[in-house]
Amino acid sequence: MGYFRPTIEQMSGYTPGFQPKSPDVVKLNTNENPWPASPKVLETIKGLMAENLRRYPDPAGDAFRTAAAEVLGVKTENIICTNGGDDLLNICVRAFCDAERALAFAQPTYSLYPVLAKMQECPCVEIARNGAGSLDELAEADAALTIVCNPNAPTTDFLSIQVLGQLARRLSGVLLIDEAYVDFTPDNAIRLTRQFDNVIVLRSMSKGYSLAGIRFGFGIASPGLIEGLMKVRDSYPVDAVAIAAATAAISDQAHFKANVEKVKSERMRLTASLRLLGFNVGESQTNFILAQHSNAEAIYTGLIKNNIYVRYFKLPGLHDKLRITVGTPQQNDQLLAALKNILDIRQGKI
Amino acid sequence: MGYFRPTIEQMSGYTPGFQPKSPDVVKLNTNENPWPASPKVLETIKGLMAENLRRYPDPAGDAFRTAAAEVLGVKTENIICTNGGDDLLNICVRAFCDAERALAFAQPTYSLYPVLAKMQECPCVEIARNGAGSLDELAEADAALTIVCNPNAPTTDFLSIQVLGQLARRLSGVLLIDEAYVDFTPDNAIRLTRQFDNVIVLRSMSKGYSLAGIRFGFGIASPGLIEGLMKVRDSYPVDAVAIAAATAAISDQAHFKANVEKVKSERMRLTASLRLLGFNVGESQTNFILAQHSNAEAIYTGLIKNNIYVRYFKLPGLHDKLRITVGTPQQNDQLLAALKNILDIRQGKI
Repeated sequence: MGYFRPTIEQMSGYTPGFQPKSPDVVKLNTNENPWPASPKVLETIKGLMAENLRRYPDPAGDAFRTAAAEVLGVKTENIICTNGGDDLLNICVRAFCDAERALAFAQPTYSLYPVLAKMQECPCVEIARNGAGSLDELAEADAALTIVCNPNAPTTDFLSIQVLGQLARRLSGVLLIDEAYVDFTPDNAIRLTRQFDNVIVLRSMSKGYSLAGIRFGFGIASPGLIEGLMKVRDSYPVDAVAIAAATAAISDQAHFKANVEKVKSERMRLTASLRLLGFNVGESQTNFILAQHSNAEAIYTGLIKNNIYVRYFKLPGLHDKLRITVGTPQQNDQLLAALKNILDIRQGKI
Repeated sequence: MGYFRPTIEQMSGYTPGFQPKSPDVVKLNTNENPWPASPKVLETIKGLMAENLRRYPDPAGDAFRTAAAEVLGVKTENIICTNGGDDLLNICVRAFCDAERALAFAQPTYSLYPVLAKMQECPCVEIARNGAGSLDELAEADAALTIVCNPNAPTTDFLSIQVLGQLARRLSGVLLIDEAYVDFTPDNAIRLTRQFDNVIVLRSMSKGYSLAGIRFGFGIASPGLIEGLMKVRDSYPVDAVAIAAATAAISDQAHFKANVEKVKSERMRLTASLRLLGFNVGESQTNFILAQHSNAEAIYTGLIKNNIYVRYFKLPGLHDKLRITVGTPQQNDQLLAALKNILDIRQGKI
C-alpha cells in the first residue's frame, strides 16, 4: 500500500503459538502452567468494584512493586511493571538500540528478539548458541543491548549466574537476562542487578504464576536503568485488574512453589517417557521440553489430528524437534499415548 | 549513564495526570467518566475462572472485535485492539514514521504525540491550531502520519467530518483521527474508514464506557492498514479480563448512552456556572471543559488545597487555562463552591 515504513511493509511480524478457542484440546504449545493460579487471585478479582475500573490504574503499579520487592529482596525502585515480558523486551530495544547501537543474542532463542530488532532497524548480531561458549562471542560483540534468555527457550538449558556476571562485567552496554522461565530452575540472576548497573532481569507472571491471561511482566534493575525505561514505556502499561491479580499471585508464595514442584515432577516423568519412545531429550530447566526426533514435523501434524497441540519451528537447528509444554499428568498421558500410537503406525507396527 | 540512546537520555517522557491513591479527593484531572461502567462488566469479571487467567488471551481479542463491529457497523477485520488508545498511537508512529517520514499535528493537542515522535526520532511538523484552518496546513505538510484529535484535547472543539474527509483525500500518507472523546459528540469519522484506505479512527473504552482502569483502546481502518498494524503491535496486547470487560461494556449500549447523557447534561450546567464565576469557557464537545482565567495557576493550586484536582499545563496557549473533567453533580458542586471561595478571597471579598 505504501503507507508503512518499508521495513514494516517487508517484515512478517512475530507469530505467536496457535491459541485454539475450544477448551476441548490438549494444549501444550505455548508454555502455560497447567495448574491454576492461587485462589487468592480470583478472590481479589471478584472483590473489585466498578470504581477500580472507572479510574485510571496506578501508573507504576506500586502495589505490585512493593509486594514483588519484598518477595525478591530488592527495592520498589528496582522494579518496572510491563504489559507482559514482551513489553519489557520492546521497551529495552527502543531504549538502547538504533541504527548505530546493536542488539546481540545467541540463536536459537526466543524468536521475538530479531523481530524487535527489525522493527527498530538496529544492527542485529546473531551468534550461534554454544552454551557458555557463546558468552565470549557476545562479550566481544559488545552490543548496546545483549539479551541472554536463561533458561533458554527453546533449548531448555541454564547458564550459571557466575558466567552471566562475567559477561555483565565485560560489556559496556546493557545485559538483559530474560528469566521468563526461571521459576523452574534452582537459581536466578537478581543478585547481578545489585552488583552491576547494566543488568536488567526480565520476569513474567505467565509461567510459574499461571497468569498468562492477564499479561503481566516486570523488570528488575538499578534505579538509574528503571528510571530511563519508565520514559519509554506506556503511561499506564498495566491495568488495574492485572495489578491486583499479579500482586495477589506473587504474595502467595506457598501456592506458587507447590505448582512449580508439580511441574518439575511431571517434567522428570515426561522426559524419561519421551526418551523411552525414542526421542532425544536434554535435561530441561523450564516448564517445557525440547524433544528431538527425525520425524518431528510428521509427528507434530499427527498430534494435531489427535487434538494435541505442541510447538514446531521450521527453523535451522529446530526443524527436527518438538517443543512440548509440561502438562498435567492426564494431559501428559494423553500426549504419550498419542505419540506411541503415531510412532507405532510409522514403524508399521499397527 | 550512557546506556540509553541519546534521544532517550535527553527526553523527559510523557507526564500523566496525577493519580491520587486516596479515594477521598474530588478527582477531575484525568477525564475519567464519573459514573460507573455497565453492571454487566462487573458481572462478567466476577464470572471469570482461573482457566481464563491461566491461558494466554486470544491474540486479536476477537470477542471484542465481533461485538464492536456489530455496534459500529464495520467488519471484524476493520478493528485492531490495543492496550489503551495510547498503545495504538505508539503503534502508528512506529509503523509509519522514521527519520525520513514525518508526524504532523496541530498544537495545542494531546501532549503524547510529540513524545512519541521524539522517541521514534522522526521529523515532527507542529502547526498552530486554528480550527478547520489548520487542516490546510496539515494537507500541505503531507506527512507520512497526520494526527487530528477530534474532538480535540484540551481545546474541546470538534471539526466536521466533512473537512476531515477533505483532508484524507489530499494526504498521500495516513490520517489518524484520535476519537478518544468522540462519545460526547453527535458525529464521528467511522464512515471515512470506508471511503478512504488511509484513515484510522482511534477509540478508547476509558471515557464514555467508564473503563479507564482496564486499558482498552481500538483502531478502525481498512483491512490493509489493520493487517500492517498487527505486525507492529505486541503479540497479546490486551489481556483476557480486559477483553471480557470491554466486550460486555460495548454490548450494553443502553447503559453507555445513559451515562453519556448524564455527562452532557452536567457539562452544560458546569459551563454555565463557570462563566458566571468569570471564566471564559468554549462549548465543549468532550467530557471536560477548558476554562480560561488570568489567575489559572493560582486557582489550580488553591483547588489542590481543597483536595480538588483539575489539570493545569504550563504550556504556551494553556498557561491561563484549567482543564476540568465533568464530574458528578455533587463533585461539580464541590468544585464550584471551592472556586467561588478562592475567587472571593483573591478579590478581597472575604
